[in-house]
Amino acid sequence: MPDVVIVGAGIAGLTAARELVAAGKDVVVAEARDRVGGRVLNARLPGTEQFVEVGGQWIGPGQDRLRRLLDELGLDTYPTYDTGLKVAELGGRTLRYRGRVPRLNPLVLADIAQAQARLDRAARRVPLESPWLAQGAARTDGQTLATWLRRNVRTATGRAFFRLVTEAVWCADPEEISALWAQFYLHSGGGIDSLINTTGGAQQDRVTGGMQGVATAMAAELGERVVLSAPVTEIRWTDDGARVRAGRRQWRAKQVVVAVPPPLAARLRFEPELPAERAQLLQRMPMGWTIKVNAVYDEPFWRQRGLSGQANSDRRMLGTVFDGGRPDGGPAVLVGFLEARHAQVAARMDAEARREAVLDDLAAYFGPDALRPAHYVERDWAAEEYTRGCYGAFATPMTLTRFGQWLRGPVGPLHWAGTETATRWAGYVDGAVESGRRAAAEILGQVES
Amino acid sequence: MPDVVIVGAGIAGLTAARELVAAGKDVVVAEARDRVGGRVLNARLPGTEQFVEVGGQWIGPGQDRLRRLLDELGLDTYPTYDTGLKVAELGGRTLRYRGRVPRLNPLVLADIAQAQARLDRAARRVPLESPWLAQGAARTDGQTLATWLRRNVRTATGRAFFRLVTEAVWCADPEEISALWAQFYLHSGGGIDSLINTTGGAQQDRVTGGMQGVATAMAAELGERVVLSAPVTEIRWTDDGARVRAGRRQWRAKQVVVAVPPPLAARLRFEPELPAERAQLLQRMPMGWTIKVNAVYDEPFWRQRGLSGQANSDRRMLGTVFDGGRPDGGPAVLVGFLEARHAQVAARMDAEARREAVLDDLAAYFGPDALRPAHYVERDWAAEEYTRGCYGAFATPMTLTRFGQWLRGPVGPLHWAGTETATRWAGYVDGAVESGRRAAAEILGQVES
Repeated sequence: MPDVVIVGAGIAGLTAARELVAAGKDVVVAEARDRVGGRVLNARLPGTEQFVEVGGQWIGPGQDRLRRLLDELGLDTYPTYDTGLKVAELGGRTLRYRGRVPRLNPLVLADIAQAQARLDRAARRVPLESPWLAQGAARTDGQTLATWLRRNVRTATGRAFFRLVTEAVWCADPEEISALWAQFYLHSGGGIDSLINTTGGAQQDRVTGGMQGVATAMAAELGERVVLSAPVTEIRWTDDGARVRAGRRQWRAKQVVVAVPPPLAARLRFEPELPAERAQLLQRMPMGWTIKVNAVYDEPFWRQRGLSGQANSDRRMLGTVFDGGRPDGGPAVLVGFLEARHAQVAARMDAEARREAVLDDLAAYFGPDALRPAHYVERDWAAEEYTRGCYGAFATPMTLTRFGQWLRGPVGPLHWAGTETATRWAGYVDGAVESGRRAAAEILGQVES
Repeated sequence: MPDVVIVGAGIAGLTAARELVAAGKDVVVAEARDRVGGRVLNARLPGTEQFVEVGGQWIGPGQDRLRRLLDELGLDTYPTYDTGLKVAELGGRTLRYRGRVPRLNPLVLADIAQAQARLDRAARRVPLESPWLAQGAARTDGQTLATWLRRNVRTATGRAFFRLVTEAVWCADPEEISALWAQFYLHSGGGIDSLINTTGGAQQDRVTGGMQGVATAMAAELGERVVLSAPVTEIRWTDDGARVRAGRRQWRAKQVVVAVPPPLAARLRFEPELPAERAQLLQRMPMGWTIKVNAVYDEPFWRQRGLSGQANSDRRMLGTVFDGGRPDGGPAVLVGFLEARHAQVAARMDAEARREAVLDDLAAYFGPDALRPAHYVERDWAAEEYTRGCYGAFATPMTLTRFGQWLRGPVGPLHWAGTETATRWAGYVDGAVESGRRAAAEILGQVES
């Protein structure tokens, strides 16, 4: 009988397993898919030894838990290509610019700067361990981020800017997200600039061999403790232990770590049923939606023209693009995101039409060479049974205030992990690492729970 | 092989089954519980032949589909006791009154009247078949009902009134609900007065023998077609049919009706996976939360004192109370609701403390005789695995606009029923009947789908 069964072999579950094994515990990691890594994945390019990353792929400053894990696993990083001009289409204008912000009309710039300062300031006042204790929490949580922005951003272009930021950060509309969740999340990741910047921000670096290496390296250490193709459906528990069922497989254990996103946790059957508050919480944490696209070219033609490969638009389906290659060789890649309602519209198109629309957008940003990629790889995480959305879950209005305490709080022998349960870099790979470590620490009696 | 498998033997599923059988179809109704009726249920009082209703129990004017079904099933109705003074605690005052509204300060009354007229007017403009086509839908759907009320209600007491109405109607906070969903729902049920009134409103009448009789009468007609204790977990489907699995049982059928609330529909496994848009919808339709209490007395002492048994309070846990007995005899019952955050607080108390708190509230409304009931029956629907909330699901901001089309739209051989999918009286028993009929009509080719 293992000490702990961990449900889900994403970064959170694998990290928890690794920590527990290091402390001498016997663990089983039950994974629904036939692979580890969850929302982190390489995709090999057909007929080559090369790959692109179709899931989480960046690490930035302040992501210290992930950084430490990379060091422990012997994985290197390299900088995201961040040289040359960026392209921004905003408020009817197309701008090419260097640095942090495009040269917009000064009134618009002042409007954006003021609203951003206000939002970041409010965010810093939200306690990361207990956002529901923020001053005025109920009032902030009782409105959507859209309502907050409507009150605090005055210019149309300013509003378009924050809508674009919302789509890029949460893959959802500002109308869907609680303003308190948004503030918590911004604080959790160090503020708006920290989240959206490349150098100096969350997109600063990449992992050599791909972020997937974090998962595969941990899984290699864990060996046969990781059981693939074992979708857990039922957990029977008492205060003394649990039985975890996945098809015909079943494990008994003293404790369990559930390390899957909220909408998947909601699908598990618990016997006895979990407290209603936890069920109500999980009904109120939907996932964002992004389709990630990698277009691979023979040459990084945009670099040759002095472009960074970074682009954003408030009027194109492909609203966010980065250079997805190494600065110093390897495949030339543009990596783009169809976010929120753009993902929804794109998912309704047939694959060929979607590809064309994406390449047309890339061509508008970077020139007609974009129309002829050598490889085109897309991934719709919302369509996958064992993910159901991306990047992560967010909280709808009033959810944190009413039910937030149930996000991390253990129930009997049951512990909860996953990036959505993190206090720092919630929604990022780093948050997944934090959550796995914290769940392990709970089990090892190292934190009060 | 049956023609149709129906998942869920609540009112929606049973109605669909009954319609299909009447049209000559072979059906199986798979029900997870060991009883039919879903959110409609009688509870026998220990040591007596008497019962109280612990689920949906009222029928009102305009609920024509339910009325017709009652006629077909030979079930009678009787009026809710609605004689005598009502009690209202609002804005720091306690008022006893007759008629529709308590005698509040004229400024407050004008404020409430104006806001109610505005809300009802906006509601009437929301198309019931497609709320997302309402004028300004995105803007309305992009804010919480709380934001709408903050803009449209000026007095503190007026705001307390609408908060109380929200809790009573949706068992949720106005901060949780999309303003567009609220308007759709109000239109669907004929407006605020129609929803909250007793005589002339949704609480006007009761079913002799209890609303449960609707379910048991239909189940009796269906006989062995209804299979109890068969929790469906998996539906494998193609365009030509489906295999529905419940534990070791499995049925093949040409078509399937899923007639369970959204958070339960989200727990089913579909192979192939449903379109991402439907999954995203179901992540955004949480259930309200109410604990329903029946206190049964030897005598209807409140009637003897000229009180109607109806009470509301903006400061008590038990915010809404009705007389739950027959006007002309039978058990003397006060039926109360712990709604939204009051349910949440109450669920954390131990049973004895909760009972005391409820009885204290009843005593404050109706006098100290309330402290000594002969029977005390409570039901927390949110704690039940196969319900997970009550009365029904609502939509969080932007859900209707982005994903509303997936609420009813069939997918291959899969059809969706349940009161949340209704266009009229969504959330009520009548809406469940509509949804069952509509799903059956889709299968019989009587509606475009």
